[in-house]
This record gives sequence, structure tokens and C-alpha cells, in this order.
Amino acid sequence: MIEKNEIVSIAVDTLGSETSLYNIIKGLNISFLRNENYHFNLFGKKTDITNELKKYKALADNVKIFDCIESVEMTDKPSEVMKSKKDSSMFRSIDSVKIGKSDAVLSCGNTGVLMALALFNLKTLTSIKRPAIASIWPNIKSESIVLDLGANIKSDYQYLIDNAILGASLASILLKIKDPSVGLLNVGKEDTKGNEILQKASSDLIELDKKGHLNYFGFVEGSDISLGITNVVVTDGFTGNIALKTAEGTARMIQNFLKSALSSSFFSKIGSFFASLALKSLKDKLDPRIHNCGIFVGLNAPVIKCHGASDYVGIAYAADLMYLLISSNVNEKIRENLEKY
Amino acid sequence: MIEKNEIVSIAVDTLGSETSLYNIIKGLNISFLRNENYHFNLFGKKTDITNELKKYKALADNVKIFDCIESVEMTDKPSEVMKSKKDSSMFRSIDSVKIGKSDAVLSCGNTGVLMALALFNLKTLTSIKRPAIASIWPNIKSESIVLDLGANIKSDYQYLIDNAILGASLASILLKIKDPSVGLLNVGKEDTKGNEILQKASSDLIELDKKGHLNYFGFVEGSDISLGITNVVVTDGFTGNIALKTAEGTARMIQNFLKSALSSSFFSKIGSFFASLALKSLKDKLDPRIHNCGIFVGLNAPVIKCHGASDYVGIAYAADLMYLLISSNVNEKIRENLEKY
Repeated sequence: MIEKNEIVSIAVDTLGSETSLYNIIKGLNISFLRNENYHFNLFGKKTDITNELKKYKALADNVKIFDCIESVEMTDKPSEVMKSKKDSSMFRSIDSVKIGKSDAVLSCGNTGVLMALALFNLKTLTSIKRPAIASIWPNIKSESIVLDLGANIKSDYQYLIDNAILGASLASILLKIKDPSVGLLNVGKEDTKGNEILQKASSDLIELDKKGHLNYFGFVEGSDISLGITNVVVTDGFTGNIALKTAEGTARMIQNFLKSALSSSFFSKIGSFFASLALKSLKDKLDPRIHNCGIFVGLNAPVIKCHGASDYVGIAYAADLMYLLISSNVNEKIRENLEKY
Repeated sequence: MIEKNEIVSIAVDTLGSETSLYNIIKGLNISFLRNENYHFNLFGKKTDITNELKKYKALADNVKIFDCIESVEMTDKPSEVMKSKKDSSMFRSIDSVKIGKSDAVLSCGNTGVLMALALFNLKTLTSIKRPAIASIWPNIKSESIVLDLGANIKSDYQYLIDNAILGASLASILLKIKDPSVGLLNVGKEDTKGNEILQKASSDLIELDKKGHLNYFGFVEGSDISLGITNVVVTDGFTGNIALKTAEGTARMIQNFLKSALSSSFFSKIGSFFASLALKSLKDKLDPRIHNCGIFVGLNAPVIKCHGASDYVGIAYAADLMYLLISSNVNEKIRENLEKY
């Protein structure tokens, strides 16, 4: 059993995704070396994990392995897992937070099941109706927090207000901004734009801003996300999911065009050779390994869902985020902000 | 008065946007030279138009100028324009279609007013409840038609079915595809994804597909737009508007990153010099002047809204689209498809 004092302890689900154990352990080790008092509870195949850990002595001294053979598959339904996969690595990772042995969960597995298990076992923070999925997006100026990216596809006024508070709390920690600006995603900036839900949410956010409880910018449009007009962009899970995937698709298309343009002729190949460092910096800025991780926020403990095909860079990045969230007491911050409201 | 036989006659609103008359006339001339039996009814300041036309003898012989001093401003509300701006270039352009003097309208002006005037004066095609705004999106393979991009922000089952038929009709003409595939935008590909409206629309589209009336692919995700998974992507106006602007913002951000990366060092500048042709081909592929024009479809006559800051390339492209739509009898095609349904 883990004795907790000031140690940040993360439960890691190592099964049920394309990401190899090699990448998971290597990624955790990178994050482990970058952060102090960091401990991991690893749920997965004990023999395999023990083997991988041989390369990382210091890390090996700071993990506890929980042998799990069963994994949640990408095709599994939440209801089935809750009934018959209580021994799976995902179920047990979440349970480890529920019983106070870990502070948070990291998984690359089935998003829908992970959200359902987290919601059922960890429950939402008082007054938060539903958790949201948040992510860090690159923008022209730096980065912003966008949420919800798919936890609730239903558009509801209260969810939007909750998301604004959750997003501002995350931004203050992850982007290290004292009073992050919050925008509400709409089809135009004018007050008259959008449906009644958006207008009601906006007028309530204006009130919160007047009272000094939130730095509300007003409505923002799709293009404002990448322009970095606000530090936080709030939307419902349906719209956020479409926006996220449309942006990902657009980025992939342009990088594809660029690659084929730069290999289309002798001269372009020379050009691409000379510009290779510059092109690498572009690629790094858009690195989906870094921007593809979803933070489940609004629960009694944070859960991070890495992309199902993350490599060690993505895992290390997600583990760093998790460390920052826990060591900065993200839920304390959220509770403070909720109380103001 | 214009005598109509096989001539394609377009009403052009030359006022009320940032686009200069120089760009409008130059663009129309380019399209005029590329198409046969093309005539324009130009609504705007007669003296200025006459002056611009001096450069284009052949075009000048195929236009009729309607002197208008009044213009619809970007801040005007539809209700005000309908009451008190009946002499504006936009109102009169649409009226010219209504009274049978033109086949279609092209404007760079206020989108909301243009849509309201078009809806009020031209009315929708029988059985179409509301028109949609469609656009041609670049994708990895070629191009696709996406609609609705903001005409109806309300999500409604019937609109989605109408949009599928309208989009397929447009794609068969504009993309020259015999049996274009149609996807319904959702947060996942599985049948169980999305809300009831999307599920009902999808099951009806499956029926239409079974009867051979439509080539329905199923649900598509945001990333599938740029991957070119289907020839047509159908969504409601709220989601479509967010997706469009998010994609535009992402493209702008990446081009901005690329530009600064390529000018960041001596070597990257050399690289950018050698790769300049390749980089230009990338820029051309993403040219917003070409992809920023919205086709109002589902009305008794098509209306094209060019971007408010279009240059002559954008105007020429929009006029070409208009010519193709009219000369291919787009509304006849839509009616045929609606009758099947």
C-alpha cells in the first residue's frame, strides 16, 4: 500500500490501446526525471512491466505494479465493462483513485468507457453536473484551453457555465495565467448571434465578469481559437468535438500538401534541405502527440486520456500535465472558483 | 430590358463591401472571357462602373448598368433594409432575378441581409423548408461540398435531409461526379453516436440510399472533411459555421508558423528561396479567395456570396461557379432529386 504525504501518485492503465508498454514506460520515465516526489501505480501485465522497468532503475524504485490480465477493448461498451470487467486495468486504475491510493488516472484506452467509469466511480465535484474533456490547443500567440471536446454532446446552459469555470481554473494552472480570458464559441461575435442557450449563458457570464469572478471576453468564432483571441474557449461537447477534429484534419492536410510540394522537384528538395530545421520547428509546434491528450475535468480526481497511439513523447507530456494538475491542487482551485459563483 | 434566350445573365451587386469596383469588374471580365453567352446586370454607381468598363471593351458590350447610389452596409439589419433600402444595389440585384431579368445574384455584401432578401424575394424551391449555404472545401484528394455553413443555426432533421439532396445536386454539377457520396457530420462513425436528430436523419438517408436515390456513406467526423472521405458533408448551420471558421483559423495559423519558420535563419531563407515554387503551389491549394465563397442553395435562383474582401481572382472564381450552376440547370437537377425523394 502506498503511503501518501506530499508524493504525487498516478494510476496508469497500461493496457487496451495501440500504445506499446515500451512507449508508456519510457514516457513515464521522462516525466519522472523531470518532476520530484513522483510515484506511479501501474496496472497491467506484471511480467512485461517488470521487464520494461529494468532499463529505468530510479523509476522502478518508485512504482508499484498491480497485475492485470484483463483489458478494456476499443469496442467494449461502458455498461458491459462495469458489469463484467472489474478486474481490467482500466477499472482498477480508477478504483485505485476511488480508494485513495492514487491521485489521478492516466490511460490511452477506450475514451467512452474511461469517461463512464470515471464518472461512476469518482463522481463529479459538488455542483458540477457533468465532467468535460479539455485540451490544450496551439494558437498563433501560444496555447489555449478548449472544452468540452466530447464528454456531453447535449447543449445545455448550465454545462456551458460550468465549463467556463472549469476551463478558467485549468488555464490558470496549465497556462500559468492569473486571470485567463474566457470566450464562448458561437457563429459570430454580436450579442444577437446563436441560440437561446448561448445567449443566456453569455448574459450570465457577463454577470460573473462584472462581479470580478471570471474574465469573460464574450462570444468568439471558430477562427478565433487558432488566433488565440482568448485563453479559454468554451463550447458544448458536440461542437467542440467537430471543431477539434476539423482542425486536426486541416493540419494534417496542409502538412501533407507541404510534404508533397517540397518533394515535387529538384529545387524544392534543395529548399527543403536548407529549411529542414525551420520545418522541424513547424512540425513541433503542431505535434499531435502533445496536443492530442484530453483532460477529464470536473471529477473528484482528474483523469487524462492520451491518444490511443501515443508514443513516449505524448505519454511524458501527459504525465507532466498530470503532475502539474495534482501538485497545483487543481480541484482546490476549481472549488474556490465554484464557491465564488 | 434584357432579352433572354440561352444567355446566362447574372445580377451583380457592386456596392456594400470592402471589395473594390476595380476587382469586381476585372474578375467579371476574366470569367466573361472564359465562358460563352455571358451577360451581367451591374447594380451600382453608373459613372464609376462606366469608367472601369473602359478597359474591357468586349465585356462592356455585354453588361447593362443599373444606377444605384444606396448600398446595404455591413451593420444593416434585414428588417430595416426590406423597409427602407429598396433602392439599394443589393435589393435591386435580387429583384432583378425575381422579375426574370437575371438568372442569379452575385454579391460581396452583408451575408445576413443577402440571405433574408433572397429568401423573402426569391423563396425556396417547393418542399425545401430553408435554403443552405454551401461551399467548396479543399481536401487531400481534391474538393468536397460542405453545407450548411450558417444559413440555419437550428438543428432540424428535415433540414439535414434537404441539405443532403441539395449538396448531392451541387456536387454532381460543380465537382462533376455522377453519384457523389454524402456523409453526415457527427462526433463518431458508429450508428449510436450523436443525438436523436442525427440518428433519425441518418436512418432516413440509409433508406434513400437503399432506394438508389442518394449515395449515402454514413456518419463522418470533422477530420474526414479534409481527408476527402465523402464528396459531400452535411451538417446544420451552427456546426458547419464553427467547422468552417476553425479550419480557416487553423490554415492561417499554420501558414503563419511556416512563414516565420522559413524566415527565421539564413539557411531557412535559402531553403525558402529554392522551394518558392513548391510553397506557392501549397498557397494556391489553400487560396481562401477561391474557397471563401458561399453558395445559397435551395432558393428559386442561386445566390453567391463572395468574401467581403475578395479580389478579382475570387470574383472570377465565383462568376465561373455561377455560370456553371446556371448553364447546368442546377435547380432542375435539384427538383429531379427532390422528386425521387
